[in-house]
Amino acid sequence: MYRINENYLKLPGSYLFSNIGKKVAAFSEAHPEAPIIRMGIGDVTQPIVPAIVEALHKAVDEMGHAETFHGYAPDQGYEFLRTAIAKNDYQARGCDISADEIFVSDGAKCDSGNIQEIFGPDVKIAVCDPVYPVYVDTNAMAGRTGTYDARTETWSNVVYMPCTEATGFSPELPKETPDLIYLCFPNNPTGAVLTKDQLQKWVDYANREGAVIIYDAAYEVYITEENVPHTIFECEGARTCAIELRSFSKNAGFTGLRLGATIIPKDLKCGETTLHSLWARRHGTKYNGAPYIVQRAGEAVYSDAARAQLKEQIEYYQKNARTIYQGLKDAGYSVSGAVNSPYIWLKTPDQMTSWEFFDFLLEKANVVGTPGSGFGPSGEGYFRLTAFGTYENTVEAIERIKRI
Amino acid sequence: MYRINENYLKLPGSYLFSNIGKKVAAFSEAHPEAPIIRMGIGDVTQPIVPAIVEALHKAVDEMGHAETFHGYAPDQGYEFLRTAIAKNDYQARGCDISADEIFVSDGAKCDSGNIQEIFGPDVKIAVCDPVYPVYVDTNAMAGRTGTYDARTETWSNVVYMPCTEATGFSPELPKETPDLIYLCFPNNPTGAVLTKDQLQKWVDYANREGAVIIYDAAYEVYITEENVPHTIFECEGARTCAIELRSFSKNAGFTGLRLGATIIPKDLKCGETTLHSLWARRHGTKYNGAPYIVQRAGEAVYSDAARAQLKEQIEYYQKNARTIYQGLKDAGYSVSGAVNSPYIWLKTPDQMTSWEFFDFLLEKANVVGTPGSGFGPSGEGYFRLTAFGTYENTVEAIERIKRI
Repeated sequence: MYRINENYLKLPGSYLFSNIGKKVAAFSEAHPEAPIIRMGIGDVTQPIVPAIVEALHKAVDEMGHAETFHGYAPDQGYEFLRTAIAKNDYQARGCDISADEIFVSDGAKCDSGNIQEIFGPDVKIAVCDPVYPVYVDTNAMAGRTGTYDARTETWSNVVYMPCTEATGFSPELPKETPDLIYLCFPNNPTGAVLTKDQLQKWVDYANREGAVIIYDAAYEVYITEENVPHTIFECEGARTCAIELRSFSKNAGFTGLRLGATIIPKDLKCGETTLHSLWARRHGTKYNGAPYIVQRAGEAVYSDAARAQLKEQIEYYQKNARTIYQGLKDAGYSVSGAVNSPYIWLKTPDQMTSWEFFDFLLEKANVVGTPGSGFGPSGEGYFRLTAFGTYENTVEAIERIKRI
Repeated sequence: MYRINENYLKLPGSYLFSNIGKKVAAFSEAHPEAPIIRMGIGDVTQPIVPAIVEALHKAVDEMGHAETFHGYAPDQGYEFLRTAIAKNDYQARGCDISADEIFVSDGAKCDSGNIQEIFGPDVKIAVCDPVYPVYVDTNAMAGRTGTYDARTETWSNVVYMPCTEATGFSPELPKETPDLIYLCFPNNPTGAVLTKDQLQKWVDYANREGAVIIYDAAYEVYITEENVPHTIFECEGARTCAIELRSFSKNAGFTGLRLGATIIPKDLKCGETTLHSLWARRHGTKYNGAPYIVQRAGEAVYSDAARAQLKEQIEYYQKNARTIYQGLKDAGYSVSGAVNSPYIWLKTPDQMTSWEFFDFLLEKANVVGTPGSGFGPSGEGYFRLTAFGTYENTVEAIERIKRI
């Protein structure tokens, strides 16, 4: 008789956002008239901008003619897209990353879940707490995280780095040396950032200790302050210790188009083996490329026309973020994030737990947010709101929250 | 210091089709004038049909307007597509499969590589020999296949089921009981099929022995003979022992659009745990859905207009298959496949090895095929040609092969 992967049975509950979805669906069914405003999941609401729509139509037409039809994509992604990413996101910032160090994918969620596969079964991971659940859950599925303690909501074999008010929502270098360090800045869920000097300390630490940093840069486009790095490759020495994950979801609204990229410098080696070669092997064996039309859309993101249109879109969401931040502050909440991030991180009032506040907000204001505790134990007592709604809904939601 | 996944280092060479690509590129560089005809990789050449192009344009327009924009897709895929698959591919054939047993994905290659994750680390797999390399390589990456013997080109912990002239290119029930049985019919690479009675024996065997069949039905649209099942769910009892993988690549030319589906009946249980729940958890945690526009294209595949257009396209490739089959037969080759498949499987002449014949064909006829030995040791002495080229190239290739 076959056996299943028992690690799956150790996972607590189901995926956070599936849970929220179910709770909201149940509430909606009970109160069909309730005008729910969703500020929970980090999904965008603004449409794909005209310049990218045009590129999509053009690529669709190409697929409809034999002379311009495209079948299987190259393993690593089309060169036109990898070149555009290398040039615009790295070389333009003075970072030494070349097109053949870029692997195109169908999104940063898949990459951040899959990247652990190229590491040994016994590597120890370190994560910020609170944290995007995918990093921990995928390592748990692979059997790396030990046993789960439902009381403390932690795994026995994970190094948690608390990011709370006390630490300024930044992680401190861990006492126990991990092998794999997941960092996401601007941070999901707290919206916090690291300055370049702070990130440089992590790069130096990883090089010194022989650790690898998985750097999730999905939200870099929201950075407004100077001295906040847009990529880890702005730091010296990152080429020997870091893998970066990029997304087109938040800078260009591709949540429903699906496009991302993983950057693995060829200098990143374990003994004689480059991690680049391992990921290339994984990509070639288990993946078959992002759709041609979506890769063409990704290329269009870097055109002058799209850049101008996307700048407006990002500013729209940034205005939402400021509106939420200021509104909550005015209402007496303790708030962070927002300045370099589409996320607003707030302290729940009156000692409520995160899920209590979730229910309270859903019932009293018909506003959906994300319970901080869903991101880890240090998220308890916190709550995440996102700026990805419409401006009208954002204003309305804040008005409702102020009233309760 | 971190460790890598050492299993990757046990893998022989790189992925088969990457190797072929490199060999052809080298030949092309040395002989830029050579009019190469590619009949190696199973990639289609006919464009996306007009009815599907129209659906793509419509969906692109939807993405360009806020009212019709689509962000993250539902975990399992959009209901409109799952319902279309359930209705047309299953219920229309009398198979009891419902929309919520279908998981939409970005292709059968990913699914066939990822499905092993939900099984225990020590399950024993059985594969046909020759076989699509992804099944074995992904289990090797997970550490399930033991050690690799370069001399015999086999893994110590895999049950190989030879499919040769002697077995009529069908596998026999293995002597050693496996936990996971990968079957692909119509077969890649041999083009062989199982009759419904033959497949029923495998279903009965799996139910009796407590094994799971991973059934890859990517090529079902090429079936021309009656009594050949289009899905394993035509067999009685398959709901308690089978997972089916479906592709839109070969029936609708989606190799560059990326769309597939995995079907896991809710009756398929290991003790109290449904495999459906495990795959749902994996899908929700590591995957973020196929693009909305591609899912709409998938829905359009089932429209009357697209059906008529696709029928013509399939018949075009089937004509190619017959042309190759008959041409090689006339030239004195021993040939199989083609009747229910886009693949033609031939015996190499003059005791040549598969790679010798690959080089011979590339040099003398400028035709690229796939060495049978790349699919496993029992593929040695065989060679695969595909019918996915243009008719003109197919005729020309066969003329050249006849001349040498």
